Order: sequence, then structure tokens, then C-alpha cells
Amino acid sequence: MKFVCDKNSLLEGVNIAIRGVSSRTTLPILQGIKITAKGNNIKLSGTDLEIGIECQIPAAVEEEGETVVPARIFSDLVKKLPEGEVEVKSDSQNTVNVVSGDINFSIAGSNPEEFPEIPEVSREKSFKLPQSILKDLIKKTVFCVSEEQTRPILTGVLFEVFPNELKAVALDGFRMAIYSYKSEESFFDEEAEKYSLVIPGDTLDEISRILEDEETEVIIYHTSNQVLFQIDNTKVISRLLEGSFINYNAVLPKDFKTEITINKDVFMESLERASLIAESKNNLVKFEIGDSFIVISSSSEKGSMSEKLEVEVKGMLLEIAFNSRYLLDALKAIDEEEVNLYFINSINPLIIKPVGEKEYLYMILPVKLN
Amino acid sequence: MKFVCDKNSLLEGVNIAIRGVSSRTTLPILQGIKITAKGNNIKLSGTDLEIGIECQIPAAVEEEGETVVPARIFSDLVKKLPEGEVEVKSDSQNTVNVVSGDINFSIAGSNPEEFPEIPEVSREKSFKLPQSILKDLIKKTVFCVSEEQTRPILTGVLFEVFPNELKAVALDGFRMAIYSYKSEESFFDEEAEKYSLVIPGDTLDEISRILEDEETEVIIYHTSNQVLFQIDNTKVISRLLEGSFINYNAVLPKDFKTEITINKDVFMESLERASLIAESKNNLVKFEIGDSFIVISSSSEKGSMSEKLEVEVKGMLLEIAFNSRYLLDALKAIDEEEVNLYFINSINPLIIKPVGEKEYLYMILPVKLN
Repeated sequence: MKFVCDKNSLLEGVNIAIRGVSSRTTLPILQGIKITAKGNNIKLSGTDLEIGIECQIPAAVEEEGETVVPARIFSDLVKKLPEGEVEVKSDSQNTVNVVSGDINFSIAGSNPEEFPEIPEVSREKSFKLPQSILKDLIKKTVFCVSEEQTRPILTGVLFEVFPNELKAVALDGFRMAIYSYKSEESFFDEEAEKYSLVIPGDTLDEISRILEDEETEVIIYHTSNQVLFQIDNTKVISRLLEGSFINYNAVLPKDFKTEITINKDVFMESLERASLIAESKNNLVKFEIGDSFIVISSSSEKGSMSEKLEVEVKGMLLEIAFNSRYLLDALKAIDEEEVNLYFINSINPLIIKPVGEKEYLYMILPVKLN
Repeated sequence: MKFVCDKNSLLEGVNIAIRGVSSRTTLPILQGIKITAKGNNIKLSGTDLEIGIECQIPAAVEEEGETVVPARIFSDLVKKLPEGEVEVKSDSQNTVNVVSGDINFSIAGSNPEEFPEIPEVSREKSFKLPQSILKDLIKKTVFCVSEEQTRPILTGVLFEVFPNELKAVALDGFRMAIYSYKSEESFFDEEAEKYSLVIPGDTLDEISRILEDEETEVIIYHTSNQVLFQIDNTKVISRLLEGSFINYNAVLPKDFKTEITINKDVFMESLERASLIAESKNNLVKFEIGDSFIVISSSSEKGSMSEKLEVEVKGMLLEIAFNSRYLLDALKAIDEEEVNLYFINSINPLIIKPVGEKEYLYMILPVKLN
């Protein structure tokens, strides 16, 4: 294998493919990036067997072929090369030679035949949406997936695709985020009602780092157990989580008795102060909702605090308590200036919605007060 | 104790005093900052018994007194308060109450009588220099102090004060840095030849974070075992290291046979690439010096590399090897664009000097080649 390409293109490709490489693998070959030189391109692939990432970059291929380079050292090396052209070649022993001007590196590669095949995903079923929307969707939901493996399905985000709507839902038993993206064009070519897939949260984290804030579209192909994200010249392939997701509509509360409108930043700053004092175990903060104010308080062996915020309150007065981390996680994902809080009573979930946005909501379970 | 002061002044003071607080202490009282309200000021003090830092800020003192607040939580709290005035008061139980508008915190403080006295340092002997110079001096020497406790004196930087010169020297057995600051005014009021102090590297690290890039002066008072840095309204008190420092002049090589002039950034980039391949244990990189070039190479189980840099060479050709980390540490501390390297042979130390700067030099021992 032998090719010449631009240092910056190569670095960009390596930086994408390395997102598929696990740092904690017991299989040495998985610490590598496979390079395949063919036609006018090279393809860089990284996988940890759960996720596979492939990225194509243009190159002058002088000799087609493939090899596997150690991911970390190859990426550090390319990063530290001067601007300009880089020549990369490998021999039958998979010794990889990298030359840039008077700089000459030889590193020990691995046999590409040992590199696991990244599965092909059938391109029959697909839907698409702008990169920026998918990035926002991930940011607003993925933090709610469960970190516990006791119910594996909850470690993923549910994507429900309706003819003109994509709904993403993540929940971990304490809180839930629902994001809805409406499309004027139908997502379906064929006659269909809806389908749903549950994508691992880890996959979405990696994808969100590859996505740009651009209008160009991501195409999402899927089968019953695999999903493929096509993002420009990059493909991300992941398994899907199997099993049935929770019927989230059934747990959504209705008939709210109290509604508050509050400035998001003021609310966040107050919660952050309250968190300083709250027990680090459950971050318990208390709300006492009056007729035109909310008193936020916390106490622990560190001390106690309380503060009063003037807010717009409609409905019943109420005392309720939460894990402040869940509130802060949700508020951090919101870009709008103001939020509405909807309560039923002190034992039912709180719903948070950005003011003026109907497209997403967060639900948070309260903590019981003695 | 009761006082009112500006949030930002209080934060600034707390951020300075907290530099004296050790995060790993077995004495709970040392995790606190002592606040002393008196006259028109409050004094914030932190100490880990090795170093003591005191900072004064203006405040409207309504009731004189003192208390000890937990450093971490108090600093987090002040940071998160809104802009404006803060009222702080403590009662006889050392419960500390912090009020800002409708925000009200009570935290458990400690008995100020348990807080160790930070020693007074006699103000008889002193010398002074601009903050920016002291900051630069620390940056250029402190990284060379020994991290090993086998020879404690080498964990500090030697300050040698002559009538018109201050020399700072640090060495760890593998490398040495010497910085010289010349003053037109004599450092001495009295008749004196020179004196020397060895200041712990950790103390200098903390001081360097307090120093600003300003021309205002730092006054350094000292006795035989204590030193006091007066920086604006901040005092840093530290013990001095005892014992005699190495006679560094005796180990400085002379009679160089080879001299190279090289661009610092080009040299650093090349060394960084060589470090990627070098064994992580000793970071061995080899130099082969020709008549108008230097070939830098390294090899390990990861692979091998070599690159050739065009440089100005005067004198003998030479092969020599170094731990690249020591070279990189020195080059990072240099601001100038070009450096001179002076060699004797492959077993004697290398001297690095910034071109056009006579005020400091680095010496690095080579690694023996087989």
C-alpha cells in the first residue's frame, strides 16, 4: 500500500476513525485503525465491536492495499507533522513508513486480515435530518439515559419515526427527556405508520462529536439490529438495543395544579448554590412555592441555605424536593431564556419546558420529604 | 465578627489564601481559611504548616473578631454569589452566616484558636524585584528542582543575592537552570558580600500563581530559616530549606567544541515527534551533528524515526543522546526565537542558551550510548 495525501485531511480522518477505537480493549488489533487505499481515496476504520466508524479522505493512491496502524501513536504523529503532503506506505510485514520532507517514521503495524469486518447495513429503510438538528437532539436527550446495566434498553435513546415526526426519548427511572422534530416531507417512501429503534447512548455521544452545526443532512439507515449514520464522508455503524422500550406516554403526568415561569440562568445559579450545601449523596434541594415567589433551600452537615426568587406562579402553593443534579442537567440542555415548571403535588413528577418551545420537555421525579 | 464587603474583593482574597491550604491534610483545621476582621480590613489566612499565605482586603467591619471557614465550600460559595455586597458574620459557636440580598447561607466554621499561628518574619534583611521578573525567574528555574526527597535541599531553588545581582539556581542531578537578574541599585543597605537562601519549589509554584506580570515590586524578607514575600496586600511565609547547596559553578562545563544555532520552535517540534517513538522510560533521543545539519532520531518497540534539520554548526561533529523531556522542559521555558547549544563531547553536559540573552542558561547531562 502506498499513498500521498494532505496532512490536514489525514488528521481529520484519523480523528474521526479514532472515535470508534476503544481505549480499554483486550484485543490488541482493536487498538488500531485500518487504512484501506483504493481508487482515489483512503478509508480509515476504527471499531470496538459495538460501534464502527469509517471515514474516507481523498488521496493519490500509488499502490492499492490495506494495513492497520496503532491508533494512538499514528494520530499523535500525524498531528505533530508539519503542514503539507505526507507519504504513507506499508510493506508485507505491515511496517508502516510515514514520510514528510526530511522526516521519516517507521512504525509497527498489524495484519489487516485480523481486523474485524465492520458489518454492512442494508440501505432499504432510512430517514434523514439536518446535522444540526441531530446534534441538538442528542444533546437534549442523551444525558438522561441510564448508566446502569440492569435494564440495558434504558442505556439507549428511543427514536420513534412517524410519517412527519421524529421523537427521541431517554429515561433512566428518575427523569425523562422527550425531543420532537417535525418534518414537512414524510420520512417514509412506503406506506408505513411508524417504526422505532433504540440507539445506544455511547454511540450517540460519539456521533455528536462528529456532527457539525450544519444544515447538511445525516441519513440514518437501519435494519432490525443495526443502524448506519451517513455523515458526509463518514459512516458510523452501531448495533441497536433489543427489547421493548417503556411506554413513556403512560408515565407522562397530566392535570397540573401549579405553573411557574422562571428565568433559566437565575434558576440555575440558585440551584448551584443550593447544591454546595446539599448532601452529596442525593443532592436534595427543597422548593417552597408561594404566591409570587419560590424559596429554594438545602441543608446538610455542611450547613444550611435558603434563598427566595420572585417568580410568576399560577395555581396552588406547594412544597416539593428534588435531586438538584437532575434539574441542573436539564437546564444546561436548554438554550431558551425562560422555562415553565409544571407541578401536580409534592409526590408527582415535575415537567420542565422551555417557554415558547413545544418541541421538547423534561420530566423529573421528586424526592420524598419526611 | 461581622463585616460587609464587595463580592469580587472577597473572592480575590479567598482565591489567594486558599493557595496556602493543603487538600491532603490530616488536621481538619488546616482545611479552613481563617478570617480576621479588624479596623477597615479583613485578613484571610491559609496554611499547610510549610507555607502560610495571608491576604488583606478592605471591608466595613461592624464587629471585630475572627473565625475559621471551610476553605473549599466557602470559596465555591463566594464564587457563586451574585455581584455586589456580601455580609458575613459569625457567632460564638463559629456558625458563619453569609447574606447577599435574599440569599442566606449558614455554614459550620471552626474555632479560630485552633488555627496555627503563621510565624512573623523579621523585616531586617530584604531585597526586592519587580513581580514580572520574579514570575519569569520562577518559570525558568523551578521545573528543574528535584522531585525526590533523598536530597531535600535539591527540592528548592537557590537564591544567591550579591550586591547587584540575584542568581537563582535549580538542579536535580540530571539538569540545571541558572537565571541571573542584575539590579543597578544594590540589594544591600549594609556592608555585605552575598547571602543565599534555598526556597522550597512548592512555595515558588504557589507564589508564581499569585504574581502578576507587573512592574510593582515584591519585597523578600528573610531570616536564617524563614522567608516572607510581600506582594501588594498579600504575604507568603515559608520555611527555608536547610543545608548547603551544591557548588554549581564547579559542575558548569567549559571549553566547548561544538556550537549549534537552531530555531527553538523547529527544534521543539522535532523533539516532540522523536518523543512519540522514544521509550517512555527514558525518552532517549539521539543527535548526530554534521557540518550543517543535525539528525534527530529515536527508536523503540513502537518503531523508529529520524529527521534532519538544517542548522548552523561551528566546530566538531558529534553523536550524543538525551532524555527528550529535559530538553523540552528547558525549551518551553524559553521565550526567544533561537537558541544556542554548546557541546564538549558525547559524555559531557550540553548547555542551552537563548540567543541574545546572557541572563540564563540550562545544562543537561547526556545519556550514555552503548
